[in-house]
Amino acid sequence: MRGGRFISLEGGEGVGKSTQAQMLADALRGRGLAVLQTREPGGTRGAEAIRALLLDQQYDWDASAEALLFAAARSDHVTRAIRPALERGEWVVCDRFVDSSRAYQAGGDDLSDNAVLSLHTIGSYALMPDVTFLLQADGAEVAQRLAERDSDGADRIGAKSADYHLRVARRFRDLAAMDAERFVLIDASGSPHDVHGRILRALAPLLGEGG
Amino acid sequence: MRGGRFISLEGGEGVGKSTQAQMLADALRGRGLAVLQTREPGGTRGAEAIRALLLDQQYDWDASAEALLFAAARSDHVTRAIRPALERGEWVVCDRFVDSSRAYQAGGDDLSDNAVLSLHTIGSYALMPDVTFLLQADGAEVAQRLAERDSDGADRIGAKSADYHLRVARRFRDLAAMDAERFVLIDASGSPHDVHGRILRALAPLLGEGG
Repeated sequence: MRGGRFISLEGGEGVGKSTQAQMLADALRGRGLAVLQTREPGGTRGAEAIRALLLDQQYDWDASAEALLFAAARSDHVTRAIRPALERGEWVVCDRFVDSSRAYQAGGDDLSDNAVLSLHTIGSYALMPDVTFLLQADGAEVAQRLAERDSDGADRIGAKSADYHLRVARRFRDLAAMDAERFVLIDASGSPHDVHGRILRALAPLLGEGG
Repeated sequence: MRGGRFISLEGGEGVGKSTQAQMLADALRGRGLAVLQTREPGGTRGAEAIRALLLDQQYDWDASAEALLFAAARSDHVTRAIRPALERGEWVVCDRFVDSSRAYQAGGDDLSDNAVLSLHTIGSYALMPDVTFLLQADGAEVAQRLAERDSDGADRIGAKSADYHLRVARRFRDLAAMDAERFVLIDASGSPHDVHGRILRALAPLLGEGG
């Protein structure tokens, strides 16, 4: 029997990824599965140190440096946390993974999607999730959730313009369309419980449930 | 008239690169030229922060993460310091540049030279020095210089084995052989003044002197 699966949650700011990652990890544990719940950038001591550099507004990284730093953090995360967990047969639930780099860093004019994927190949040996849930919410709902966050949420990425967030959402949709086998689109409107139910229903075949 | 030139100094630990970088920058300034004297990893605030992560022994970066971090630091350094200086017509004297990444990170089995060059293309738009001085000293002389350094010199890279340093020296020679137009081999034996004289003689054509 095949062991654990690698699940990533993706989407823009304020769509509820962190909440859903927690609820999903709890649900998997409730089924007796071993779960590594993690996030990017971060997830290992080295990657958390890089995360601190990325979010610190005193360093105004350009697109290339930012992409290289995210890839370095991901490399450490994959090598020291994600791959060992999968090899132990655990499930991995990761809040953001390479698709966030593709949507955020390659969304502009400076950096192509192929460039970001080549960094992923060099750094993380092209490890991809088995399933990627793309959480999608309408703009008004997201704006409200972001406004409800305290000022700690106003980091470098969260502070960007509404137009920027719309471009990112469009990029995510394009990535999902390019890889319909791996991506599952999730309607992120309604209560966290509603959204969680949609994710579990989509995951049922992988869990050997229903279908 | 063409403005500044971009000069890098390369070689293993203890061959005297930093001393020669200083003497070269002083000599150029003595000729009335504007000079940016800098080093890698580092040279900008962001790159120095990445340097601190690279040299901190608590993070045991693997080859890929290390290469990505060096490339990120170099990207910031090129964008914010080296390219602007060249555009102002200044000369740039840099203690280590991309060839150090090629010799140190691509020297092992994990990472190809092409992979390191692709990171340089993405991060720094493939900017290469006009001239690269490769300082070469024999093993005994280098061992003595390294032993004379105080314990602050015992960072992560300096602490590696003699065998490792020999491999790096061989890699540098191979790189120089592959790009004989750009590399100038410098005998780093004898006094700093002797070595400086060799570098200045090699540079004379670019300075419009002698020949």
